[in-house]
Amino acid sequence: MPIPEGMKSVRERVKVVKEEPADATKKKSMQSAGRFVIANKIWQKSTVTRTSDVVIIFPPKTEDYVVMWLLSRLRSRIPEVEIHVRQMADKPAYGFFLTSSIKVFMEKAEEMGLRKKLKDGGMAEFSVENQDEFLNIEDPELFFTSGDRQSIVMELVNNMRAVEGDELAGIKFVPGQTIVPKLLVEEVIQQIFPLHDHDDLAKLRKTWVKAFFKKQPLDDIRDYFGVKIAMYFGWLGLYTKWLFAPAIFGIIMFVLMSRGEVIRDWCMFIFSIFNIVWATLYLEAWKRKSAELAYRWGTLDMPSEALKDPRVLFEGEWKPSHITGKMEPTYPSWKRNLFRYCVTLPAILTSLVVVFLVMILVFEFQRWVDGMDNPPKWLKFAPKIALAVSIGKMDDIYKTVAYKLNDKENYRLDETYENHLIIKLVSFQFFNAYLSLFYIAFSLMNFDKLKTQLGALLITKQVIGNVKEALVPFVKQKVKEFKKKKDEEKKRKEEEKKAGNASTAKPDKPAELETAKTKQPEIEAAMPVYEDTFEDYLEMFIQFGYVVLFSAAFPLAGLCALLNNVVEIRSDAFKLCTNLQRPFGVRVENIGTWQDAMELMGVIAVIVNLALLGIGGSLTRMFPGMTPAQRILLIIVIEHVVLAVKFAVSYAIPDIPEWVEDEIAKVEYKRREAEKAEKLAQRNNGGAKSPVS
Amino acid sequence: MPIPEGMKSVRERVKVVKEEPADATKKKSMQSAGRFVIANKIWQKSTVTRTSDVVIIFPPKTEDYVVMWLLSRLRSRIPEVEIHVRQMADKPAYGFFLTSSIKVFMEKAEEMGLRKKLKDGGMAEFSVENQDEFLNIEDPELFFTSGDRQSIVMELVNNMRAVEGDELAGIKFVPGQTIVPKLLVEEVIQQIFPLHDHDDLAKLRKTWVKAFFKKQPLDDIRDYFGVKIAMYFGWLGLYTKWLFAPAIFGIIMFVLMSRGEVIRDWCMFIFSIFNIVWATLYLEAWKRKSAELAYRWGTLDMPSEALKDPRVLFEGEWKPSHITGKMEPTYPSWKRNLFRYCVTLPAILTSLVVVFLVMILVFEFQRWVDGMDNPPKWLKFAPKIALAVSIGKMDDIYKTVAYKLNDKENYRLDETYENHLIIKLVSFQFFNAYLSLFYIAFSLMNFDKLKTQLGALLITKQVIGNVKEALVPFVKQKVKEFKKKKDEEKKRKEEEKKAGNASTAKPDKPAELETAKTKQPEIEAAMPVYEDTFEDYLEMFIQFGYVVLFSAAFPLAGLCALLNNVVEIRSDAFKLCTNLQRPFGVRVENIGTWQDAMELMGVIAVIVNLALLGIGGSLTRMFPGMTPAQRILLIIVIEHVVLAVKFAVSYAIPDIPEWVEDEIAKVEYKRREAEKAEKLAQRNNGGAKSPVS
Repeated sequence: MPIPEGMKSVRERVKVVKEEPADATKKKSMQSAGRFVIANKIWQKSTVTRTSDVVIIFPPKTEDYVVMWLLSRLRSRIPEVEIHVRQMADKPAYGFFLTSSIKVFMEKAEEMGLRKKLKDGGMAEFSVENQDEFLNIEDPELFFTSGDRQSIVMELVNNMRAVEGDELAGIKFVPGQTIVPKLLVEEVIQQIFPLHDHDDLAKLRKTWVKAFFKKQPLDDIRDYFGVKIAMYFGWLGLYTKWLFAPAIFGIIMFVLMSRGEVIRDWCMFIFSIFNIVWATLYLEAWKRKSAELAYRWGTLDMPSEALKDPRVLFEGEWKPSHITGKMEPTYPSWKRNLFRYCVTLPAILTSLVVVFLVMILVFEFQRWVDGMDNPPKWLKFAPKIALAVSIGKMDDIYKTVAYKLNDKENYRLDETYENHLIIKLVSFQFFNAYLSLFYIAFSLMNFDKLKTQLGALLITKQVIGNVKEALVPFVKQKVKEFKKKKDEEKKRKEEEKKAGNASTAKPDKPAELETAKTKQPEIEAAMPVYEDTFEDYLEMFIQFGYVVLFSAAFPLAGLCALLNNVVEIRSDAFKLCTNLQRPFGVRVENIGTWQDAMELMGVIAVIVNLALLGIGGSLTRMFPGMTPAQRILLIIVIEHVVLAVKFAVSYAIPDIPEWVEDEIAKVEYKRREAEKAEKLAQRNNGGAKSPVS
Repeated sequence: MPIPEGMKSVRERVKVVKEEPADATKKKSMQSAGRFVIANKIWQKSTVTRTSDVVIIFPPKTEDYVVMWLLSRLRSRIPEVEIHVRQMADKPAYGFFLTSSIKVFMEKAEEMGLRKKLKDGGMAEFSVENQDEFLNIEDPELFFTSGDRQSIVMELVNNMRAVEGDELAGIKFVPGQTIVPKLLVEEVIQQIFPLHDHDDLAKLRKTWVKAFFKKQPLDDIRDYFGVKIAMYFGWLGLYTKWLFAPAIFGIIMFVLMSRGEVIRDWCMFIFSIFNIVWATLYLEAWKRKSAELAYRWGTLDMPSEALKDPRVLFEGEWKPSHITGKMEPTYPSWKRNLFRYCVTLPAILTSLVVVFLVMILVFEFQRWVDGMDNPPKWLKFAPKIALAVSIGKMDDIYKTVAYKLNDKENYRLDETYENHLIIKLVSFQFFNAYLSLFYIAFSLMNFDKLKTQLGALLITKQVIGNVKEALVPFVKQKVKEFKKKKDEEKKRKEEEKKAGNASTAKPDKPAELETAKTKQPEIEAAMPVYEDTFEDYLEMFIQFGYVVLFSAAFPLAGLCALLNNVVEIRSDAFKLCTNLQRPFGVRVENIGTWQDAMELMGVIAVIVNLALLGIGGSLTRMFPGMTPAQRILLIIVIEHVVLAVKFAVSYAIPDIPEWVEDEIAKVEYKRREAEKAEKLAQRNNGGAKSPVS
């Protein structure tokens, strides 16, 4: 069932860019800036290339023999794929335009276990034999979505393997190695991407981007962008829906809290407990929803990890796998573990301690400045600048270190690679996002400041985030369009002048018409690439932290988050449907390490909420007769009870909804009955040996 | 793959007995007392009934039409099973002796997916077609173990279902209901049990019971007693092996602790941490070992729960299952959940609070008596008697309540039923076992008393346990044998006297010879039934608690436990191989809720160990400058760090060893390749439709 997982994760591609020499990077960034030049509207008017699903583009000025080498291999080794070669319209580069026939799509769909809708409303793995049971099979154009076709073509292309003696431009292939992914890494191929489908996209824009208060069309998103992206939006949607509870409860608390200190203390206590319970239940709800989505999208029962193809950048001794017998790189896990526990773990912990100390130092500096009677003006801003600079610098260094370490750990699969990267990066972001708040709460014990800071962070950070994500690219593009137009007008005028000087011959076609003729592949090749779901999850993860960690101090946190997310969903959707190259669909079973990270956050929330309760003085006012030691013990007891209840609740709620379990059982039952029937038939036909031989 | 799970768990059978009217119970207990009458040695000399695998016995004086009714159904509906009917030798009762042919064993083995050893050393599901690949297939008597044969026969018998109109002795069967299990519950059938195999048993006695310092032959145990019992011994074996660490470390600590207070305090601290780490690692190690065993024994990938047959006592509306379409009782899970959370949970919590309060009350009474200057003699013993009586009484009541509630929760499967029962019963046993220790530690804060108490508990309780388990039945039996002999001698003498008075005719055969002729089934029918693994696990679970909760106070706990367990393994083995009816093999994937219970114990251990550290005064002596509040905070911080590390370690260690994952992947790969090949063949043969129809 290994539907192609894109050529390699975008994250890795970013990393590759990072390792290039400085001027190469500069070239790249200029290129990508250039991508904004083509206007969105023009693109939508461009000629649709119906006849191809996936495009392979070579760098400009690639020598012909390289192109021919790959073309001949593709044509001879995967004759199922139809290839059209074309010179790109806008630059001296070749492009391969790949597609295949309906027959191949059907056979591969069956082989890959593609799940499709049945006429009776259910879903099943596609089978050529029983094709009549499937919805829309009469019209193959409708039956196979553009996403299906792209997955199938990429599955074929990715599986083209090298044989003894394959060599190109100094790259020696190990027999059994996948050729195209390797060429992409080596930048012999500039990019591979699936083409957009304007009809589907138009539909998504209508039913998703603009349908502000409607349910997201998750199945359509999955069909178009793949499971991984659809899963992100499913998650974001559920989270947003659940935010209604703390938003409403928070407003009530906010109103009540102004009614005097006693009420405020109790409110804080109740709201803390509420938040903890809410977080626990929400996380359980998502687990169930996630299982449901994964079932619907056919990724709940992914094949064993050992059967998936390794990452292109996975290194190891090439030898036949002891599982499949195919040649592939092998890397013993003890080596990885040794590195992980002897190098990565100490390195990451040390880095985090350094980050922690530097930040605390800057905070102390700030405090010292704040304590001065009349500090000089430059000194007033010094801590803030120091913080900004040091965090920026540390972020850079930490990221470099984290990527390097993660690369060295040499994970076999994209998913594992990504999951371990998430752990590393999130640890840093945790300090970055919350340390100042912890400092204010637990060191300065200044609750008013905590409130102000939280409000500022929640509101400004999110507004900035949304602006950065959606508005900036939009405006940038407009500016560039405007500039381009002006440039061209200028050129034209100059030319006209020249021409006018010479003669008043045929007038130039207007520039717009010229661009409008540009074909879809050229336009999409120049579009920016979708930067993976990582940044989107991270943003939401940090927001989730604000809500569950500190909302007792700032009860409107839930409301702010809710308002932000209602916009966030659509602005993320807008981003994907408007300005970006289409990403390859990636099949995932769940949201991976993000779930673990959020569950950890749920536990930290218990500790932080109760610590805030202890430090905030509420408890002192609620139980004035207690000694400090007694008060601490009381908090500890409450903390342990809450944690116990939290774990009991997680334990008691099944992670997979009953109906999903039942559906899985149904399929298994059918399979077993079929197997039994077959064996019986075999036995009766006398084809097999009799039991007593 | 559903190998029969015994007719129903023994635990349930016990329960059924409980619900009988009082005189019925009395009758039963007299019967089971009678079972000890037959001497072990005589049994071993008895005639072996090679021709049957499973015996069904009717109660004495069952009317003939009942026996004939069942016989005719068995013969017509499962003709694969051969049935011999015989009047039992020792009482007026009928017995059915069931077996089957090699042909049936082979076909069913394939259908059930029985895993057998291959000639090349691996294991695979048995397949008639590829039978030549399997070890010992040439000699079917050797190839199918007695356990295999029994499982297969029981699978056939258990699957005999009622049709419309089936009715016997007032019992109306629902069409689709399994007949034999129902008759057993209704006591129309007295018992069903598999016969012992004396050769195998002799081998096990040699390689297992008497091989005191050798590895347990787990595979043989599994072959003979089934996965569930083998899993228990596997678990006990690993636990015992791991106990070497705290035993040795404990001896060192014990020696060091006598070297002055400072060293003692540090030792206590270090040993606490050691124990926590040890418990974490051991639990992880078991999870991996358990996965390995389950893989080897073919239970790692059990079918969906919904595909297993429901418990006989499972109640619900009879209708076609929406998964398999077969008739079966259906019970909505919302009803169960409603009952669980609205009745069971409050009831159990209330009961536990009551137990807690009563025990504390008695402890306080004891304390008050201990505080008296010169208490009257009767008062001195009053608290101890009160405790014994109240615990005994509460245990009875609690058990009744727990069983009733668990029955009402109406679980569909034996495993789930048992797992939920374990949770309920263990909660009570937790208080029963540890509350007095907690009281001494945290309320009296008397560390010397804690030590004495722990030592006493660990040593006396275990000695008593072993005596009760192995010695008592042995002695009882000897006594009864002796009595019987005497009685018979007396009878003979009386008869001789009578005869002497009349004439000096033919002398009676000696009594011993008479018994020796008794056949195997009669003897085994009279043997006591193995009372499930529950009591065995419970005993070990409580011991595990002593070791990890309090060993810092009594470092020799590990050593005591180790010494006990070395004996325990063999005495449990002795019990199974000597005096008990053979149990049906039960297939389980792991040790179920016991793993969860022990992991919970691991967490409680962290809290208790650190609390003891705080209360024991070690910390006060180690950091004399601290205020109480600071000391508490220090402990809390250590506790949280330890817990965090503990969870991180559990998270980082994979639950299934890599090689097992690889083996599973290998099988999946083969299956997929075969499927692909088949589809391809189908397509090429033109047997199926062409992809484009």
